[in-house]
Amino acid sequence: MKVQVPKKALADALHNVERIIPTRSSNPGLNLLRIDLLGDALRFSGTNLDIDIESTVRADVRGDGSLALPAQVFGQVVRALPGDVVDIDVAESELLVSAGDFATRLQLVDPDSAPTVRFPDAYTGTLPARAFARALGSVRYAAAVAEYQAIFRGVKLELSDAGSRAVATDGFRLAYYDLDALSGLDAELIVPARSVDEMIKLAHDGDVELAVAEGQVSIRTDDVRLNVKLMEGTFPDYRRVIPSSFPVTITLDAGTLREAVARVAVMADKTANNRVDLFIKDGTLQITAEGAYGRSQEAIPVQQEGTDAEIALAYNAKYLTDALAPLEATLRVSFSGPTSPSVLADPDDPSYLAMVVPLRTG
Amino acid sequence: MKVQVPKKALADALHNVERIIPTRSSNPGLNLLRIDLLGDALRFSGTNLDIDIESTVRADVRGDGSLALPAQVFGQVVRALPGDVVDIDVAESELLVSAGDFATRLQLVDPDSAPTVRFPDAYTGTLPARAFARALGSVRYAAAVAEYQAIFRGVKLELSDAGSRAVATDGFRLAYYDLDALSGLDAELIVPARSVDEMIKLAHDGDVELAVAEGQVSIRTDDVRLNVKLMEGTFPDYRRVIPSSFPVTITLDAGTLREAVARVAVMADKTANNRVDLFIKDGTLQITAEGAYGRSQEAIPVQQEGTDAEIALAYNAKYLTDALAPLEATLRVSFSGPTSPSVLADPDDPSYLAMVVPLRTG
Repeated sequence: MKVQVPKKALADALHNVERIIPTRSSNPGLNLLRIDLLGDALRFSGTNLDIDIESTVRADVRGDGSLALPAQVFGQVVRALPGDVVDIDVAESELLVSAGDFATRLQLVDPDSAPTVRFPDAYTGTLPARAFARALGSVRYAAAVAEYQAIFRGVKLELSDAGSRAVATDGFRLAYYDLDALSGLDAELIVPARSVDEMIKLAHDGDVELAVAEGQVSIRTDDVRLNVKLMEGTFPDYRRVIPSSFPVTITLDAGTLREAVARVAVMADKTANNRVDLFIKDGTLQITAEGAYGRSQEAIPVQQEGTDAEIALAYNAKYLTDALAPLEATLRVSFSGPTSPSVLADPDDPSYLAMVVPLRTG
Repeated sequence: MKVQVPKKALADALHNVERIIPTRSSNPGLNLLRIDLLGDALRFSGTNLDIDIESTVRADVRGDGSLALPAQVFGQVVRALPGDVVDIDVAESELLVSAGDFATRLQLVDPDSAPTVRFPDAYTGTLPARAFARALGSVRYAAAVAEYQAIFRGVKLELSDAGSRAVATDGFRLAYYDLDALSGLDAELIVPARSVDEMIKLAHDGDVELAVAEGQVSIRTDDVRLNVKLMEGTFPDYRRVIPSSFPVTITLDAGTLREAVARVAVMADKTANNRVDLFIKDGTLQITAEGAYGRSQEAIPVQQEGTDAEIALAYNAKYLTDALAPLEATLRVSFSGPTSPSVLADPDDPSYLAMVVPLRTG
């Protein structure tokens, strides 16, 4: 065989699979990268048992067959290569990688010892890649981290002919994002947050095609295919907990609030939920924090509805900052009460909604 | 009191002292920053017992006296401030820091509980700041890391009317740098490598003034003063180990060798001294490395003196890479033998010299 391939495209394709394939594994062979030689491309594949991946790079290929070697070392070698073009050859169970005056011989292993991954034949759903990544990226922070939180550690995808929504919650906060596109599918999928991170990284151009099967969702882009194992269980009925009546509502610039919270929170007590206090009265939002070293405060003029009312409440500063991150323009914060959830959204673009439960301060 | 000060200058001055003052310390008060109010400046000071520091920022100051508070929290608050100008005031044992609509109150402590640092009255030596930092920065890598290596963990400064040299060695490699300037001092100082790092960071513009006292060197720049505790002990006579007879010498571009070593070393066995092999013959330098995953090689044409000779030897790749880092233009590598030290230097600029001992390969 002989292969010639542009270095950057090769490095990119390898980078996609390297992130998935474990460096070390007690499961023999799981650290291996499988390389299939196609007529005009190299196809790399591997798995970590939660995610199967296949990444293809166009190349000038003479010969066919399959090879396998540890994924990580091949990626390292390729990134260190000089020049723009890489030549690859095989001799006596070694992979010869050369570029310019540089040459490496990498020990190959039996391709039968590498895992084989299989992808669906048909992808019946489609979503625009950027919007898909944005929806997942906007809500992913609200997924739970702790092991015991089970199903809360996933992001739910609600796909139907009524819409396409990504939603996540850990019980203390919630975020959803409605895509302005229909997928053509009718399914409710709960994707582990760590697999969501990979889906976000791979969805950047054109369309993402989707296929749903028992316990698995698959996505396909121009050069990558991914199988993701779904979480089992019932996602809570989150709609029930989003309040609908708000005695006080304020409107202000999202960036102004984000920066003010970050500044004031420097003094917040990290051992007491990183607490910041908000007090709204007469069109002014006062933010304060107090900790072992002293006290910070900042006042922001806001447009207030329910002007005869005032409200005082406290949040975990990190929850506020996370909820504000996807918001860029005008922000409306709607307060249902001092101990019941507050809702953050852009009044001009309702696709993203965040809900944060205040801290109990009693 | 009332103080008004530009935010960036304040943040920079605090940053200098924050790096030194420990965040936590079993020694009470050591985590405190002392602030002295001068007529037209704020002076910050603190110590970690190895290094005393004082950093001054020009400010509009009304009032006088001294204050103290934990260094880290003040720095954090200042960095998070909005706007360009900071107002500082004191009320009831609190420091009031405000900028725009933002205000923080920081708890002050008794300034008598903060350490007091004293600096020399006279600085009798001078060196150009950039060259001083460059000399230290070029040799610092060769200082030893391990505790038991005692005096090898320092950088030696040789100051006399014959020259100004910084030198470091860990027994396996050595580097020296001769400054093109005389200090006006006559002293041999061994500075702990971690203190050298601070000296490098603070010496950037104009001149560095120097003062030497029993067990201590002090430096002064426009806005910073530093006392550094010296190491005690005798630095080895390193001149004795630098070879002077070289059967083979090669000349090539320093960057070309640096990149080739980095590429080939990807395959080097990290558990076997990160070994790379060099073989020089007939005007070609061949670099190879071999590890668990395979083998890399690269050939570089070089200008060779001693053309009837050939030489094969091995190095720790990291030692070669470190030695090459300060070299930018033409490089001469002089080989005294396969098991005796090699010398690297720029033939057109002899200020920097690196020596590396080959690995025993027998």
